[in-house]
Amino acid sequence: MELIKAIYERRSVRRFKKDNVPDEIITEILDAARWAPSWANTQVCSYIVVKDQTIKERLVDTLPPTNPARNGIIDAPVLICLIAKRGVSGYYKGTASTNKGDWFMFDAGIAMEHIVLAAWNFGLGTVHVGMFDADKAQIVLNIPSEFNIVEMTPLGYFDDVPKATPRKQLKELTFLDEFGKPYITQ
Amino acid sequence: MELIKAIYERRSVRRFKKDNVPDEIITEILDAARWAPSWANTQVCSYIVVKDQTIKERLVDTLPPTNPARNGIIDAPVLICLIAKRGVSGYYKGTASTNKGDWFMFDAGIAMEHIVLAAWNFGLGTVHVGMFDADKAQIVLNIPSEFNIVEMTPLGYFDDVPKATPRKQLKELTFLDEFGKPYITQ
Repeated sequence: MELIKAIYERRSVRRFKKDNVPDEIITEILDAARWAPSWANTQVCSYIVVKDQTIKERLVDTLPPTNPARNGIIDAPVLICLIAKRGVSGYYKGTASTNKGDWFMFDAGIAMEHIVLAAWNFGLGTVHVGMFDADKAQIVLNIPSEFNIVEMTPLGYFDDVPKATPRKQLKELTFLDEFGKPYITQ
Repeated sequence: MELIKAIYERRSVRRFKKDNVPDEIITEILDAARWAPSWANTQVCSYIVVKDQTIKERLVDTLPPTNPARNGIIDAPVLICLIAKRGVSGYYKGTASTNKGDWFMFDAGIAMEHIVLAAWNFGLGTVHVGMFDADKAQIVLNIPSEFNIVEMTPLGYFDDVPKATPRKQLKELTFLDEFGKPYITQ
């Protein structure tokens, strides 16, 4: 699939078919995440592929009761969780290099979006899920304390492509040479 | 360009030609960033397109003297800076929804990577630059204090495609059902 088409047409999917996703495709999607750039190539992100239905259900319990992704996690055959090591990205010899401190969230955003776009390329839906009790999810997945679970996404086939959520206009989001000076003038 | 090809073949570019980049292409690249997903569609990222050579030079002065992206910023005709509003992404009614606090870094990672991938699609090089004195850059670009400048990237045409930086093996980066249990077993 064309890159620009994928970027424009990707949607957050929350209703999945139960059909199995072959491991060959899951592996290709994880490989796309592997190639994500990271701070000084520190590669702090790794991935837990959850297929066990009991574990998926325990993870669903870490989401708020109203979260619309809950059913998606139950139905989709696969859940991919992104974890990131703290204190490495954005650091030099143990000291934070910038006023942002740890850059693991930035690197995690890039890597997770590689997963999301690569999945779309294979006709698979995902949705960025960051709103859950990470301390509880950490226990469910046995994640050591030096890693943070950042996000999870169900991964699966779907019937209906959801509508696009609206976006601000480019005019509101862009400036030329300094803050406040319009880049787009028509 | 194919999405998967772009993900695998994209490289960080630090040596640019001085050739102009048409505004139509810059606009398409920014539009790809506009379509980036964000926490509850909060869309906290915006973009400053710097073409003014004096301002670019003042921004180069915020990078460490040894940063290999310095010459790239001088030579490339365009520098794109990503700024993000704090206290919105990851919050609900003013309270952080997760143990990560502000998610602006996560959303910024996604949006910046959309820029990087879309640029590659148009044959344009970029490099994620996060290592600079953000407080100084904030002043150069007149950025209000409720926004953080997160990253910048030169944008331009280039002659030689740099070599790939190595990546860890997928086996080291992936687990099945819980931390520590291998997903890839061959």
